[in-house]
Amino acid sequence: MANIHDSAYDLEKAIRESEEFNHLKNSFEAVMSNPQAKQLFERFRDTQMQLQEKQMQGLDITEEEVEQARTVVEEVQQHSDISKLMEDEQQLNLLINDISRIITKPLEELYGNPDHQ
Amino acid sequence: MANIHDSAYDLEKAIRESEEFNHLKNSFEAVMSNPQAKQLFERFRDTQMQLQEKQMQGLDITEEEVEQARTVVEEVQQHSDISKLMEDEQQLNLLINDISRIITKPLEELYGNPDHQ
Ligand SMILES: [Ca+2]
Ligand SMILES: [Ca+2]
Repeated sequence: MANIHDSAYDLEKAIRESEEFNHLKNSFEAVMSNPQAKQLFERFRDTQMQLQEKQMQGLDITEEEVEQARTVVEEVQQHSDISKLMEDEQQLNLLINDISRIITKPLEELYGNPDHQ
Repeated sequence: MANIHDSAYDLEKAIRESEEFNHLKNSFEAVMSNPQAKQLFERFRDTQMQLQEKQMQGLDITEEEVEQARTVVEEVQQHSDISKLMEDEQQLNLLINDISRIITKPLEELYGNPDHQ
């Protein structure tokens, strides 16, 4: 029987060595080493997070907040290093979702089996 | 370089063959094969889900709902097969959390590196 922790560490190594992770690492470091890009990226992150929090708490989002968020998104889209970073984040997210679908299959089969409904 | 999908499938197999998963599978099947236990378990699940949904939507939870939830939890705790199932779910959750911590380490290191803050 394969050891779960060994398999998890093998998978962690495979992720760390993947093209997707290394592309993301490079783009992230490119943005972080440029103070102007870093500041814009952090402002984008903060804005997204604030809106998400308000949504989760069921609070209304004002027109002004929507407008501010739209402005930051536009600035970010025009910044090639940040756009690249966001694309690379999306690629890694797809990979992580794939992995997650694979490893939760036993549970999904157990709980999703129509015989049990 | 290890292949990510191969590593993920190895991990899936390790989970499927684990003691934790097989204990959960046995307890789940024990509850599902007993109509009275199945019904109580599903009532518990539905109650938890309804309260969670209301919380996520920022809606108030009434005293009556709290009381209903408490009653179902008490019934469930007194049912040994369901208690066993819930313990086994918790054990598997601990395992899944462990795995998740291991495989998200590369990302955590990248985004959590204090040099980047
Ligand atoms: Ca690159
Ligand atoms: Ca068992």
